[in-house]
Amino acid sequence: MKKIGIGLIGLGTVGQGVATIISNPNDRHPLVGELELVAIAVRNLQKKRDISFPNSILTTNPIEIVNNPNIQIVVEVMGGIEPAKSLIIQAIRAGKSVVTANKAVIARHGEEIANEAKAAGVYVLIEAAVGGGIPIIEPLKQSLGGNQITKVSGIINGTTNYILSRMDKEGVDYADVLRDAQKLGYAESDPAADVEGSDAADKIAILSGLAFGGAINRADIPTTGINLLEAIDVTYARKLGYGIKLLAISEKEKTQSKNQKSQPLSIWVEPTLVPEDNPLAGVNGVNNAILVEGNPIGQVMFFGPGAGSGPTASAVVADILNIAGIQSMNKDKTPLNLDPLLSAKSWRNCHVAEGREIKKKNYIRLIAEDTPGVIGEIGTIFGQKKISIESIVQFDSSDTEAEIVVITHKIKQGQLEQALLDIKKLPQVKKIAATMGCL
Amino acid sequence: MKKIGIGLIGLGTVGQGVATIISNPNDRHPLVGELELVAIAVRNLQKKRDISFPNSILTTNPIEIVNNPNIQIVVEVMGGIEPAKSLIIQAIRAGKSVVTANKAVIARHGEEIANEAKAAGVYVLIEAAVGGGIPIIEPLKQSLGGNQITKVSGIINGTTNYILSRMDKEGVDYADVLRDAQKLGYAESDPAADVEGSDAADKIAILSGLAFGGAINRADIPTTGINLLEAIDVTYARKLGYGIKLLAISEKEKTQSKNQKSQPLSIWVEPTLVPEDNPLAGVNGVNNAILVEGNPIGQVMFFGPGAGSGPTASAVVADILNIAGIQSMNKDKTPLNLDPLLSAKSWRNCHVAEGREIKKKNYIRLIAEDTPGVIGEIGTIFGQKKISIESIVQFDSSDTEAEIVVITHKIKQGQLEQALLDIKKLPQVKKIAATMGCL
Repeated sequence: MKKIGIGLIGLGTVGQGVATIISNPNDRHPLVGELELVAIAVRNLQKKRDISFPNSILTTNPIEIVNNPNIQIVVEVMGGIEPAKSLIIQAIRAGKSVVTANKAVIARHGEEIANEAKAAGVYVLIEAAVGGGIPIIEPLKQSLGGNQITKVSGIINGTTNYILSRMDKEGVDYADVLRDAQKLGYAESDPAADVEGSDAADKIAILSGLAFGGAINRADIPTTGINLLEAIDVTYARKLGYGIKLLAISEKEKTQSKNQKSQPLSIWVEPTLVPEDNPLAGVNGVNNAILVEGNPIGQVMFFGPGAGSGPTASAVVADILNIAGIQSMNKDKTPLNLDPLLSAKSWRNCHVAEGREIKKKNYIRLIAEDTPGVIGEIGTIFGQKKISIESIVQFDSSDTEAEIVVITHKIKQGQLEQALLDIKKLPQVKKIAATMGCL
Repeated sequence: MKKIGIGLIGLGTVGQGVATIISNPNDRHPLVGELELVAIAVRNLQKKRDISFPNSILTTNPIEIVNNPNIQIVVEVMGGIEPAKSLIIQAIRAGKSVVTANKAVIARHGEEIANEAKAAGVYVLIEAAVGGGIPIIEPLKQSLGGNQITKVSGIINGTTNYILSRMDKEGVDYADVLRDAQKLGYAESDPAADVEGSDAADKIAILSGLAFGGAINRADIPTTGINLLEAIDVTYARKLGYGIKLLAISEKEKTQSKNQKSQPLSIWVEPTLVPEDNPLAGVNGVNNAILVEGNPIGQVMFFGPGAGSGPTASAVVADILNIAGIQSMNKDKTPLNLDPLLSAKSWRNCHVAEGREIKKKNYIRLIAEDTPGVIGEIGTIFGQKKISIESIVQFDSSDTEAEIVVITHKIKQGQLEQALLDIKKLPQVKKIAATMGCL
């Protein structure tokens, strides 16, 4: 069998992880031994790396990878939007299948890339884009297609989960843990994409598209990160029997009606109180976990390392092997049709429902004067807005001020907004200090 | 596109679940709509069922399914060894791909069936054979091939996990819970295959073959069920910070040496103490969870409903879709080669290592006279056999008798056997009342 030529664009931690696997096929699936690293595009030829390559296969020009006739599969692990996106499209147009870990590109331009791939009859596989090493993309494509999926949710950003785990365990402030996480390499020097929730929003956009069969507009996802989270909320949540996790949630509340051209999905990213007995509550550190719910499967969970060189490389190689496996099916030169599961083209239109339509439980922390009537007044307003309350607890913070934590039942966010407007107007209420979701 | 003809052999709970999905393609992957239920073999044509079928597609003769030229995929969900095995082989020889949930057949005759399938150029897919609805077979085949797998373990029998969960929560005896589980339909009227561990051994045999690339002899797996487990051990385990789970474990302790023709694997099924902070400890009721460990992925876990009509049907349909997807790739009549990932043929020889070579932590409960020197004597024997002890705790059971629980560090089982022989000879020791594994 002729070896299958692989071209790597990028040789950072993930790229090196991929190269390590391909260079050491022993004890892995024998198809790994059929892969050959033909060329690698790097930024700096002189840079010292943990594994060394002959200079003949290194290049600083990624276009050489895209155009190399000995390369059948292009692996894009350089990251960032451009030039990554253009290189992916050029590789597709050159008739090569593409494997990418680039969630930012796929979340924003997935539909365009999928159309290009379809036209060229090649695959673009993205297992590494979500959940690091956890097999979640392939299971969604290939193992859950018999289900009517109703919800996909989970912890899909390792950096913030690491920070939240430490805030919870050590009772320390966000800023302190972030600084330490940066020192330890668990957070980037510019942590914005992680801590502000944008990375998780990219990933839930991708998962939604696969689970519900239609791309959504990434920009429409309401996103709140952990960067404004206060230690006091972690403490109060724990006292009430919850941990706080940054959850990404995508839910089909209603089935598309006949006069709707598109399936509405409630999608959002937000720090969320998770009851201690929920399987997500035990997911700590840089681990990720994704729950998929549907009919008739019920609920399944995928758990594992959400980032890191090795796990992400495992996912990239999984995609390479899937493409290599399909290529080896072809006995003659007639090109095959695309496998409709693996190519995962859209099969209905979907859109992000309005934020005020999202139905969920809420955690609200208010700072108010410590006067006897205040809880009654707050309760009255919630009642007027038809918001049923699960609990209302007063934590005293000083002689004159009280912190009041309200947990609602499941309500539409539009209802909550209305109630909070009225509560803000109460003379005893000084501040709505925090609002979060609650499972 | 011409519809893909499906023939069902068996219309029990799983068969009905599969038929329900195929008959209601709305809101599922569009490929479900390309499937057509051509014929169903049942035992009794008159039986009342939740869904009704035209009599024209029902038959009492499964050979008609196997030989029907309009059927491309045969789904065997009748269970039992024969005639299921023969029907699978006849279907393969008739050039049809097969989907089966039959772990007993695959664990015992998987290699023979795989060879038949290879010769005929068809697939035999078995997602539903392990872990009910949990995608675990496809991820092992298609998503983890880049890894050097070191261990597969987990809770893979829902009935026993349900019984253990209730024994733990309610402090009741095995026999009482079993009776109740039978009434509720969570245990069969003949529960032997579940409670004696044979079902879990079938499943770990299948998982081992996929994870390590070579079939093992199912009969060689040392298997202990939960049928002899006493409530007192559940209580003591909990006092020491553990829950008891029936675990199936398959581990590559050593890499195959050059003079070995086959890779040794330590495989066993046994009630096992699981520390409360281990992810398996929280897996309760009929849920299953499978951990896969390897290099470079680290550890991933797959969790979900381990049995039941809907989840198992979800897995069966996943396999049907995978085959249908591949069939739709073919543009002309030239048959395709088999996808080496999906067909999962063996790529090395493996065998079950001797039980005495298994290295693990152990829980041992002894009944002894309540005399001052007894713990010292027991400790001395363990020391002589070079067995390091993690803890030794005395629980008083009566005025004259003491129950002594020993937890060892990780040791070879051969060492433990030797020590227990000597301990039995101690005049103060009345009985070795229980031995179990411990994580």
